[in-house]
Formats: sequence, C-alpha cells, structure tokens
Amino acid sequence: MGKDAAFQVQFQPIGKRVTSSPDASLFAVARESGIDLASACGGEGNCGQCRIVVLAGEATPPNADEAFILTDLELQQGERLACCTYARSDLTVQVPRASLITGQRLQIAADLGQMAADPLVRAYDLQMSAPTLADIRPDLTRIAAALAETFGLPGVYANPVVVRALSPLAREQGWRFTVFMRGQEIVGMGVWGQRPLGFAVDLGTTKIAAYLVDLETGADLAAAGAPNPQIGYGEDVISRLNHAVRQPDGGQVLAAKVQETLNDLLCELVSQAGVATTQVVEACIVGNTAMTHLLLQLPVRQLASAPYVAAAGTALSVRAADLGLTVAPGAVVYVPPCIGGFVGADHVAMILACDLDQHDKVVLGVDIGTNTEIVLRKPGSALLTAASCASGPAFEGAHISDGMRAASGAIEKVRITAAGVELTTIDDAPAVGLCGSGIVDVTAELYRAGLINHRGRFDRENGRVGDGRFGPQFSLVPANHSGSGRDVVVTQKDVNEIQLAKGAIHAGLQILLEATDTAPEEVEEVVIAGAFGSFLNVKSAIAMGLFPELPNAQYRQVGNAAVIGAKWMLISRAARHRAEAIAQHTAYNELTTYPKFGRKFALGMLFPETVNRNQ
Amino acid sequence: MGKDAAFQVQFQPIGKRVTSSPDASLFAVARESGIDLASACGGEGNCGQCRIVVLAGEATPPNADEAFILTDLELQQGERLACCTYARSDLTVQVPRASLITGQRLQIAADLGQMAADPLVRAYDLQMSAPTLADIRPDLTRIAAALAETFGLPGVYANPVVVRALSPLAREQGWRFTVFMRGQEIVGMGVWGQRPLGFAVDLGTTKIAAYLVDLETGADLAAAGAPNPQIGYGEDVISRLNHAVRQPDGGQVLAAKVQETLNDLLCELVSQAGVATTQVVEACIVGNTAMTHLLLQLPVRQLASAPYVAAAGTALSVRAADLGLTVAPGAVVYVPPCIGGFVGADHVAMILACDLDQHDKVVLGVDIGTNTEIVLRKPGSALLTAASCASGPAFEGAHISDGMRAASGAIEKVRITAAGVELTTIDDAPAVGLCGSGIVDVTAELYRAGLINHRGRFDRENGRVGDGRFGPQFSLVPANHSGSGRDVVVTQKDVNEIQLAKGAIHAGLQILLEATDTAPEEVEEVVIAGAFGSFLNVKSAIAMGLFPELPNAQYRQVGNAAVIGAKWMLISRAARHRAEAIAQHTAYNELTTYPKFGRKFALGMLFPETVNRNQ
Repeated sequence: MGKDAAFQVQFQPIGKRVTSSPDASLFAVARESGIDLASACGGEGNCGQCRIVVLAGEATPPNADEAFILTDLELQQGERLACCTYARSDLTVQVPRASLITGQRLQIAADLGQMAADPLVRAYDLQMSAPTLADIRPDLTRIAAALAETFGLPGVYANPVVVRALSPLAREQGWRFTVFMRGQEIVGMGVWGQRPLGFAVDLGTTKIAAYLVDLETGADLAAAGAPNPQIGYGEDVISRLNHAVRQPDGGQVLAAKVQETLNDLLCELVSQAGVATTQVVEACIVGNTAMTHLLLQLPVRQLASAPYVAAAGTALSVRAADLGLTVAPGAVVYVPPCIGGFVGADHVAMILACDLDQHDKVVLGVDIGTNTEIVLRKPGSALLTAASCASGPAFEGAHISDGMRAASGAIEKVRITAAGVELTTIDDAPAVGLCGSGIVDVTAELYRAGLINHRGRFDRENGRVGDGRFGPQFSLVPANHSGSGRDVVVTQKDVNEIQLAKGAIHAGLQILLEATDTAPEEVEEVVIAGAFGSFLNVKSAIAMGLFPELPNAQYRQVGNAAVIGAKWMLISRAARHRAEAIAQHTAYNELTTYPKFGRKFALGMLFPETVNRNQ
Repeated sequence: MGKDAAFQVQFQPIGKRVTSSPDASLFAVARESGIDLASACGGEGNCGQCRIVVLAGEATPPNADEAFILTDLELQQGERLACCTYARSDLTVQVPRASLITGQRLQIAADLGQMAADPLVRAYDLQMSAPTLADIRPDLTRIAAALAETFGLPGVYANPVVVRALSPLAREQGWRFTVFMRGQEIVGMGVWGQRPLGFAVDLGTTKIAAYLVDLETGADLAAAGAPNPQIGYGEDVISRLNHAVRQPDGGQVLAAKVQETLNDLLCELVSQAGVATTQVVEACIVGNTAMTHLLLQLPVRQLASAPYVAAAGTALSVRAADLGLTVAPGAVVYVPPCIGGFVGADHVAMILACDLDQHDKVVLGVDIGTNTEIVLRKPGSALLTAASCASGPAFEGAHISDGMRAASGAIEKVRITAAGVELTTIDDAPAVGLCGSGIVDVTAELYRAGLINHRGRFDRENGRVGDGRFGPQFSLVPANHSGSGRDVVVTQKDVNEIQLAKGAIHAGLQILLEATDTAPEEVEEVVIAGAFGSFLNVKSAIAMGLFPELPNAQYRQVGNAAVIGAKWMLISRAARHRAEAIAQHTAYNELTTYPKFGRKFALGMLFPETVNRNQ
C-alpha cells in the first residue's frame, strides 16, 4: 500500500477501531479517538510512558528514542512508544493498563472547616398579571415592577441573552416563576420555587475536582472528578504553555478540551442531583496560574519563559456561556486572584480553606504536585509568604521506570523486610507500577534497609540489589506475579529522579524559613494538602527527608483543600474578600533567584543521616 | 434533465452566474447569491415587485399568482415573478432596474442642533517599565498601577477578552501605548496617541444610516448608508417578525443578516476615515421596537400579535462582539429605550435630536414610513404624547403598480399642466416608476387637475383618464419613453392605497390632538423627520390632505433626525439621561383602541374640499 493510504487501527483491550492517517503517530491517533495515553513529554519520545504493543500488522521501525528507552527484549516482544510509531498497514495494538490515564483514583473530599452561605445570587419567587390590551408594558418592565412591589428591589435590569429566555418562560409558566438575581441583575429563571445552585471546581494540572452546591444553604448536592484532558498535550505546565504558544490554535484547543470536560462534569453533577442546568447561576474555578490562563485563553507567551509574568493576576469574572458552560444564561464564573509566579488561585483557595490566614500558630502549608506550592504563616510578620518549587512529576509517577498514576494495580504501600517485600496495591489488583505514595514508601524503605546510601546510591555489594539496563536496581515484583507481565523495579535513575523532586521541595521549605527568619523549631504545624498528600505516608516522607527537620511540628493531611476553598468563594462574598486579601498580602518569593538555592537544592537531595536505619 | 439536478442561472445585467437547486425559487436563488430583489411580501407571490424576464432556458410555467398580477402581454414577453419561478434548465434571467433594491438614494445627513461631547469612554496615553526578574507583576497589575500613578485612576479592571489583546500589544509597543477606559474598565487599546471612536446607527426598517464619530470631540469622521438586508424577508415589520417566529432559525438568520451589514458599514466608515477598527470602543444603535428586538434576538412571538408586547423596553447594553462587530474587544453597544408599541429607540432619538422635549411651543413631530410615528409636544401637560400609525409601505413605493424606491429613474416631482405632464427623475434617468415624493406629488396633482374627485375616484368622463386592467388609470410616461419599456401609470387601485396610508396618518394626528385637548390652531410647528419626509413636497402633502388643517403651523423638514439622536447618545452621557427621561415621560397612545378611530380613518381618506382646484 502507498504512504498516502489510511489504515485501520484497533486498540485492545478497549476494542476501539479508528482510521489512522500515515502522518499521525499512534499517540495522536489514540488521542483523537478519545484514548488518552499517559505522557509526561506530550508525545516527544522522551518520557517512555505511552508504551503499546503492536500485536499484528506493519508499523514504522523503532527510532533512536525507542532504542534508547526500550530494552531489546521489549522491542522483540513488539513493545513500542506510541508517539514514535506510525501505521504502515492495518494494525492491532495492545494498550497496557499502565499506559492509560483514565480510571485513576480521584480524591475530592476533604474534612475542613465550614463557611456560612452569603451568596451573590439569590432567588425570588414571583407572581404577576399577564399583559392585556390595557397593559402592554414590556415583559422586563412588568417583571421589574413585580420585584419592586413584592420585594422592594428597584432598578432591575437584564442582559438580552437572559431576556431571550425570560419572555417564553413567563408565558409557559402563566406569569408565576422564580428569578435568580445577582444584585439588581436578573441572571436566570426557573419554575416557581427552584433554588439557585453553584459549581465549584479545582482545575488541577492532572485532575479536576468539582462540587454542585446549594448557594443559599451551602449544602453539597453532588461531587465528581475527572482527569484534566490537557494531559495528552504535556504533563507539566510549561509543556502545555509551549503547546499553546507554538501550535496554531494551540490555545483554543487546550481551552476547548478543558471547557468540554468542565461541562461534562457539570452535566454529571446535575444529573446526580436531579436538578436543572438552568439552576446553576454561579461558578468558582481555581487552578494554578497556567491552568487559569489556559482556561480563559489569556496570553501565555510571557508566562512560558523567564521572568514568567502572568497576563492578569487579579480576580476575574467571565460569563459562563463564554466558557461553553450550559447553565443559566446570565451565570458568571469567578476566577480568584493569583499570588505570583505559578502560585495561583488554587493555592489561595487552599490557604482560605485551611484558615492559614487566620492562624495564630507558625504553620507551613505544602501542596505537592508537579509544581509544589508552599506557604508559611507566621503571626506578626507579613500575613503569609509563598513560593513555588519545580518538583517535577516524579511523585505523579512520571519519569519513573515503573511509575504510574494512582489507578488500579498501583503499588501504594511498601515495606521491605528481611523476609522480602510487603505490598499494598490499589483495588488489591496485581501490581502494575508505583504511584506517588508507593514511590515515597519504597524510597524510604530502600534507605532504611540500607539498600541505598545517604547519597542515594545503590549498594552494589548487597545481594538484594540486582543489575538492570541502567545499572543497579531493586525488583519489587517479578514479571510472573505482576499485572503487566514485566518486573516492577526501582532503578538507580528512579532514585535520582526522586532525589531531584525532594531536593526542590526540601530546598524551597528551607529557604522559605530562612527568608522569613523562622527557625525550624518554631514551626508548629505542617498542613499537607492535595490528593497525593492525603495518601502519603508521612513517616516515610520524613524518613526520606522530603521535609527539613521540624522537631516541634504536627503534620496534618487535609486532602483537596483547594476545591473546598473554591466552594467557600462560590457561596460567600466574605470568603471572596478574604481570598482577595490573601492574594494581596501574601509575599511571593522567587526561590531560584536566592544565591544559596543551588547548594540547598543539592543538600536537599541527600537522605537524612539521622534516620534509624536497618530496623 | 431530472428534477434533482442543479442548474446554472445567469442574472443580467449584473453578470452573476449561480447554481440553483430545482427546489429554490429564483427569488431565493438571487437572495442567496447576494442579489436583493425588491419584495413587499417576502417572496409570497403577492406584491408583484420581484419581476424578472426569462431570456433563455426552461422554467416552471406561470402559476395562478403570476396570472393574476402579470398581463398576458407581459407573460408573453417572458416576464415572471422571481418568487413564483423555478429553473428547469440552465437559465439566463434579466433583472429590470426597478426590481433591484440596491443603489437606492440614501439620505443620511440632517441639519440639527449640536451636543457637547461627554463620552463614557476616554483615552489614556501610558508609558511604563517592562517586567524584569525583580518585577514580575502581572501585566494587568502593571498597567493598573501606571493608570493609578499617572492619572490617579484606581481600581482598574478588564475582561479576559481585553487582556487577550493587551499583553501582546504592550510588548509590541515597548510598554508605551494608549488604553481606552470606560470608567474603571479597560475596553480597548491602541498605539500611543490613538483616539477613541464611536459608531452611531439608525437601523431603519428599509434603510440603515451610520456615522463614525470622534468620541472626545464629537466630530463626524465618515458617514455611510445601506439598505436593510432583511427586506428580502418581508417589507413591513410584522412580516419580518412572523418570519422570525415561524421559520426554524428565522430569528438567527434575520439577526445575522443585519449584523453582517452593520459590520460592512463599520468597515466602510473606518476605511473612509483611515482609522483602525480597534479604535471603535462604543456604539449606539436606534431602531423601532421590532428592529431592535430582531437585532438583539430578543423574543418576538409576543410582539408579533396583539397586544404587541415588547420583551424589553428599557435601554440595553450588549457587548459589540456579541453582535459580531469587529471593534475594540471590550466595546459596548447601547440600545436606547422604547416608548411603547412599535414606537422605539429611533423615535426617542428623533425627539432628542429635534429637542422636542425642551420646546416651549406646541409641536407635532412626524416620522413617515411603513410605520409612521407621531408625537405631540405641548408645554405644561405631560412631557410628550406619542402614537404609531400603520400607514403601510405605499409611500415607500410598495403596493403601487409602478411604485419603487428612491433609486435612479424614480419620478420624484410631478406637475400636471394643460399641456401635459412635467416630470423630474432621480439622476435625470428615463422614468422607471414613482418613489414616495413622486407618489405624493402625482396624487396632489391628479386631485388639483380634477382627474380624481375628493373621494379619490377617477373622472371617467375626462379624456385624459385612460382604461387599464384594474379600471381607470392615468398614464405619466408612455412605454416608448420609459426606462422600463412599459407605461408608467397611476391606477385607481394605487390611489386607493395612497388614501389608506394618508387616512391612517391623518386620523392618527387628529386623535393625538383630541386626546391631548389640543385645537388644530394651537399647533405652531410640524417637524417632518425621516428620509421620505425630507424629499417630500410639503405643499403637495397639504394639498392631498396628508395632515389635518393646522392653520398656524410652520413646517420644518429635518431629514434623518434619528441618526443624529443616536450620535448624541453615543458621545454624551447627558444625552442618554435625556433619552431615558423622554422614554419614561412620553405617554403612548394606542390609536386603534380609540372608539372614533374607524370613522376618523375613513374621513382621513378623503381629499380636502378646500383645495383650490383646476388652477
């Protein structure tokens, strides 16, 4: 067949059959047909996450990237990187579970304080007389008069898009219905007695968490989560910003992807709660600076390279319809302010939900992710001081040989004993790879068991340390017991990646303490937020030296506090004022400009000498 | 050829060749390809305006409507109604000049008072330092700080669509540029020193007139006009409203048509003035209630039938981008309030521009069109009293055998002498038909010359009265001298149509006077607005009894005052306040509910007995 022909590609075990152009990599073909393969590099042949197996048919031969990343045996078995492979005939392709980013565990609830409802939008139940030849007032004038007479609400107005829905509804309902008012503006309407609802969203780089909330009571009606569909365009924020800058329509595509998922989540929530989409009259969406810029299609060229300047950092309000949300016609989306750099509205939301702005203790807040945001509350000094550490996606499972997301079959707990290795996997499924908490556990255990030294080097003398393609490695699960049919291993390179991640966080926390003249002993509490943080074994994290020594600190794992903060800002004007004060009064520290940063980073990569090893 | 085939249709003398589906009438084919054929009925086979001649090829045979409207000779000569004719082979079609609605004369200027500029949007020329590693404030924060420091303007904000353009421009211009501010909101930006401009529009049922204005000085930069492209969907407002209600997507199509023409006009103005579209930061669009509802896609079902209720009657502001205008990203369109019924923002604008709200005389304002709006200013009583007369499109040339728009070849002045007929045509071209002022002239002359009696009946005994298909008629131009190759005639039916139109206006004015206890002698001035009104021979209008006897009235023809009022509201906040007061304090009278309406209407159809005839 010629090079110009189109081929059929069947993806197994999903059973999806799609048409592939010879110019599109199997990674692109999969993405276009809705199969999201894992990728940290966005399909550039660097990360090795998008592994597939060609079961039947002819594909292009392996390229240099694949020859570097895959073993000879893997290549012999038909294993390939989807981003480097192009169909040359009809193909049947196997997608291993570890290469799929769907179906991962999403952690959306968190147990934090409460916020009293004080919403911007309120409902008014109205009844009025219909027009007659003797009373031909325009519909909007009639409704405004009824609001003035019944509720003493003067000066009512509405945008034409709201009027478009208002006149038909008023007649259908016999001039007895409910209007939703944002101050003096009608933003929506419903049948008599319907309540106004809100949509709170934490738009994470990796995961999206959302709540449907009764605006007048603050009660949760439904919760849902989904992976961020932009992942296929790069796992870290810089790759995504670069996609938006470099590809024609890149920004529109990324915005459309996430807007579509937000709308799907909204529909799922509304369906769960058994309410009407037109009752949703307000939304609050938080995310880091890159995520909110991409959502709102703000310019990102200047955010993608030094000195990393945001286009807008203040709170923004946009019409929900402009973001493609099918809600009340006048609904508004509130995007809270940013702090600085990539420390965005999600961190403001986290600070708010954890009441860090009101604490009378010295508290460190840490939200571990591809970017790790950290904040120090120290009563008496500046309200708060924040910084961002480029910790990389190692704790999300990327750049780790057998790393994976927190999905079924992921190893989340590890204990290395004299007898062997004790594991816990998600869903108790056969082990496929290591998710974030497993990575922390196994690293701490390797160090505790003396298999790696305090510089992170494997002890080649130790009989339990094997030899792999990249040098020494430790086998957690043999191929015949694993869910992937391959050994699950930790390599020297993996340990190095983990050291880079922990070095960045460790150094960031140390500099934050020094910059605020805070002795480690003064820190009374460490709040660990985020999904990864809530599954983390804190003892292991301390053992591997993820945090500096904080002898007097209590550790508190609060889960996804950002979405709780978003919900508070959704239902409460007071919460928005607090959020705006937090953003305004939080000092932002650019860590990389500190002279000692390089040295602290290098020291942070070491494992703590004080750990009681070989227990 | 089978019925499913597509045919080529060539329209002459335009020279346009288009593909026709066999299911589309030639009227629809012409419209889709941008050739706007005249039509009062919207292509229903009733008005006889969309005449064409099939020169070559096979078409469907004439139907019953055509047999009724066209003479046997016309049919023999290949004359057809485009809306009743379907291609059955490739066709060559001749479009007579009278059937085209393009190229008509548009009157857009008027000599009225002045309004001092006091605009909502102002320009600020800014210069600031670029971001550095030591100063990573977000762009919007940087610009807001510069506005606060340089001009003492605090609390600046912007919508994301504005920020989208702001960051790239700031960098292109080296952080030295101009921002356009609407209060504290940035609505646009330009290169250093660019001035903010505005777009003022009178959206007439038939014609659209527009100005480009310097907002800060009020100076006119350019003027342009175009026919309303909705004409092809019905000449009067009720046909158009019915199209919007009955056709799927009818409302969207009508809105898109007019929005496209507005954008074309804007581009023409900007090009004339040699400025950038992004300098246009504000617009004001006036029109009758139906026109503004269709423009804004407000619900019209309740406006299309009794009791004719508007969806919204108060002033509305919408984003220019929502109307498809390519202007500054944050530009707003202001649509002023309505008075009642179909008396809309255009009449408010006319009252404003003529200062009728501030007059100390008793003044009647009349804007003659398909709907004729009338208003009485009487110092000491209610501010103003307005009414609407369904005068029909006779004065626009519709429903008149040889009626046409004010285009080249239209008879605009007529004098019947003993020796014959003296005519003036537009462009001095061979006569094709009668436009509005010609229709008024010829009617007055026919009556003065004794060819019709005071009931409007032709004097069959008079040798100058001929015999036509619809009974007695008067020939103005024989076929061999006309531009159409046909006699230009006035028939008994034509005179009856004119009587219906003048009867409605006459009755409306009389009832308005009675309802406000105003004696005809009290009226000191009659202001005649609108394009038709400015070409009108007032003596002829009085002679034919278009107005009741107003013995002490001075007549003043002011041309298109509505677009001047729109301009005032564009450049002046004070003018908007006055307009809103006018709408609020003008009493609306529904004429048809007056018990004496029918009788007054019938009496108004008569010609005045007092006219000095046979001079």
